[in-house]
Amino acid sequence: MTPTEFPISAPAAPAALAALPTPTLLLDLPRMDRNIARMRARLDRLGVPLRPHVKTCKSDRVARRILGGAPGPITVSTLKEAAEFAAHGYTDILYAVGIVPSKLPQVIALRRSGVALAVVLDDVGVARAVAQAAEAAGVTLRVLLEIDCDGHRSGLGPDSAALLEVAEALRSPHVVVDGVMTHAGESYACRSEAALRAMAEQERSAAVLAATRLRAAGHPAGTVSVGSTPTALFAEDLAGVTEVRAGVFVFFDLVMAGIGVCRTDELALSVLTTVIGHQRDKGWAIVDAGWMAMSRDRGTASQPIDQGYGLVCDADGTVLPDLLLRSANQEHGIVGRRDGAVGPLPELPVGTLLRILPNHACATAAQFDGYHVVGEGDDGGKAGDGALESGETDGWWPRFRGW
Amino acid sequence: MTPTEFPISAPAAPAALAALPTPTLLLDLPRMDRNIARMRARLDRLGVPLRPHVKTCKSDRVARRILGGAPGPITVSTLKEAAEFAAHGYTDILYAVGIVPSKLPQVIALRRSGVALAVVLDDVGVARAVAQAAEAAGVTLRVLLEIDCDGHRSGLGPDSAALLEVAEALRSPHVVVDGVMTHAGESYACRSEAALRAMAEQERSAAVLAATRLRAAGHPAGTVSVGSTPTALFAEDLAGVTEVRAGVFVFFDLVMAGIGVCRTDELALSVLTTVIGHQRDKGWAIVDAGWMAMSRDRGTASQPIDQGYGLVCDADGTVLPDLLLRSANQEHGIVGRRDGAVGPLPELPVGTLLRILPNHACATAAQFDGYHVVGEGDDGGKAGDGALESGETDGWWPRFRGW
Repeated sequence: MTPTEFPISAPAAPAALAALPTPTLLLDLPRMDRNIARMRARLDRLGVPLRPHVKTCKSDRVARRILGGAPGPITVSTLKEAAEFAAHGYTDILYAVGIVPSKLPQVIALRRSGVALAVVLDDVGVARAVAQAAEAAGVTLRVLLEIDCDGHRSGLGPDSAALLEVAEALRSPHVVVDGVMTHAGESYACRSEAALRAMAEQERSAAVLAATRLRAAGHPAGTVSVGSTPTALFAEDLAGVTEVRAGVFVFFDLVMAGIGVCRTDELALSVLTTVIGHQRDKGWAIVDAGWMAMSRDRGTASQPIDQGYGLVCDADGTVLPDLLLRSANQEHGIVGRRDGAVGPLPELPVGTLLRILPNHACATAAQFDGYHVVGEGDDGGKAGDGALESGETDGWWPRFRGW
Repeated sequence: MTPTEFPISAPAAPAALAALPTPTLLLDLPRMDRNIARMRARLDRLGVPLRPHVKTCKSDRVARRILGGAPGPITVSTLKEAAEFAAHGYTDILYAVGIVPSKLPQVIALRRSGVALAVVLDDVGVARAVAQAAEAAGVTLRVLLEIDCDGHRSGLGPDSAALLEVAEALRSPHVVVDGVMTHAGESYACRSEAALRAMAEQERSAAVLAATRLRAAGHPAGTVSVGSTPTALFAEDLAGVTEVRAGVFVFFDLVMAGIGVCRTDELALSVLTTVIGHQRDKGWAIVDAGWMAMSRDRGTASQPIDQGYGLVCDADGTVLPDLLLRSANQEHGIVGRRDGAVGPLPELPVGTLLRILPNHACATAAQFDGYHVVGEGDDGGKAGDGALESGETDGWWPRFRGW
């Protein structure tokens, strides 16, 4: 077939995919299940329970799959996530972004509705406001102190005087200083297994030190919460840790592959796209997945292998060697060979379906309102487990968004 | 006030803003109206009508404001946009992303519902498929040929043999070869007014040449559609052009300011955010606007002035000198001084409200489901004009998304 002859659909496209509008978010269920099993096996061996971060999936269906059907425990990044999951029956929720007083009315409302919502903070003024608000409302609030283990973002130094000052400001019959939480965000910059193991130990030891100091000062501090996908998968010892948070492991992505945490054939999310044109003199195929579908995330740009806006696969999900989504406009993507690759662009007639593996699963998934669930063999099109909910079809799992 | 004393809300925060959850998308209506007036005055002087690109706003309320209340003409980037605007009464719609055969059933359905939807293409195989589909459906389809005026993305060379071959493949009683469309995407790389003027002329002359050749070959080709915000605002002559498409002008953004197309005090969109913590030794304030709110767009990174993830303003929208959203995680942003700036971080107690001006209005707006409309003086809180629709409140204008 010459490129100018019109193919009504891609030769290799499974019939079920050819019926989907593009761009569309695909979720490979067997891959996701293997990713979940890997994390659970790892943490089972270390004897620490998982509190998955649902900011990645924003989906009850996915979260239940992670949790073996149970409604929690979970970690959230917004109060919208807390409210949505609470509406699905989750009661053990950690809101892992620093609380501010203006958000306390929502927290108190969730507590009153029976949700064991814990908040985090690292500021003595906020601590006072939380104690005051809890007392005024007659509600008991659970607080974890945020610990800075790696200079990445927020948190109190584990050996700082401020740690005890903030805890002291929380002393109230209506506040439980339940412990500490930390996140080794710098693990994303690790470039070897040894570095990942060291970062996991740095995260663990900072959290344990902070909790030990709080207990010595008379606070309960029973919870020692750590986590990121890289440290969770490479930690060798979690002594003193009571729970691990991780989110992106459920799908993995090119950034995680670049760190060495997974292989590209383990990535469970992809964007299904259609070839809509060519610029043959430039070696480009134009597709209908631009940055609106992929997100603007370029997380691999700072890694040894830059994957552009994503790695291109055929419609079955097999990586096409050295083919990238090289650039992206709002609804146009430009597919081309990786710099330095030899050989011509593969034949990709207009209408060909491709899958693009994303740099960052959290960012790409957020561009869509749901997952089209696909599988291998018998799993294809039969992905549903459990009762369907309003608005769901068996092959489509909804996501939510917003604040 | 010392930083550790708790302020319940920012001193400078207008009461109406303090009641909003953060992060929230704000739309400054007077600024938007001035941006619209500027574009309309420019095109009136050149004697060419505007066909605004609604991929930026994805909002009937905003589009009507651009169009002086009329339902069209508009440009769209997805068939979802076409369907949503058609449902609001718009009938003159250009779908400006290359059509593929798998999307023709949706196009035909919109045509049958009375929408004068035009499609674009640049491939002879697709042209044949369009003619076949139109004949099979007994529907007349309007087609514009996409012209490549600057090597940016898609399209046929204006002087290419392929231009006439594709037009020839469209010959059918059910197809109107209505003309040409081109988009000078490379205008975003211009760094001077002279370069912008030259790019506008390059865009115009390519489109006019292609249309002239089509007419000489016996095609109607009455439509000559050009446009991008930079070329629309700097074109000095649009002889032969019948319509101008532009989208981002309605809001402007830091990328446009970096090109020199607008000033930062003309940006109509911002993200309202709350200070949630500090790392004082690093000169950071942590805010609750991360990349989920701002998008991952780093469009100013390749410009002479890199604005990080956005320029920081006080709650009233006045730029705070040299303060940037320097980095972003999913729900955390790090505010700090621009590299090389002197002096300390301003006092920003936890709870302070800030506004962040975005790099790219299309990308940031897409992270939200609607606009909180704000104004200056009497416009504040009274932004509504015209009847409210289901789901709207007067100060909140909905957006849609998806495909």
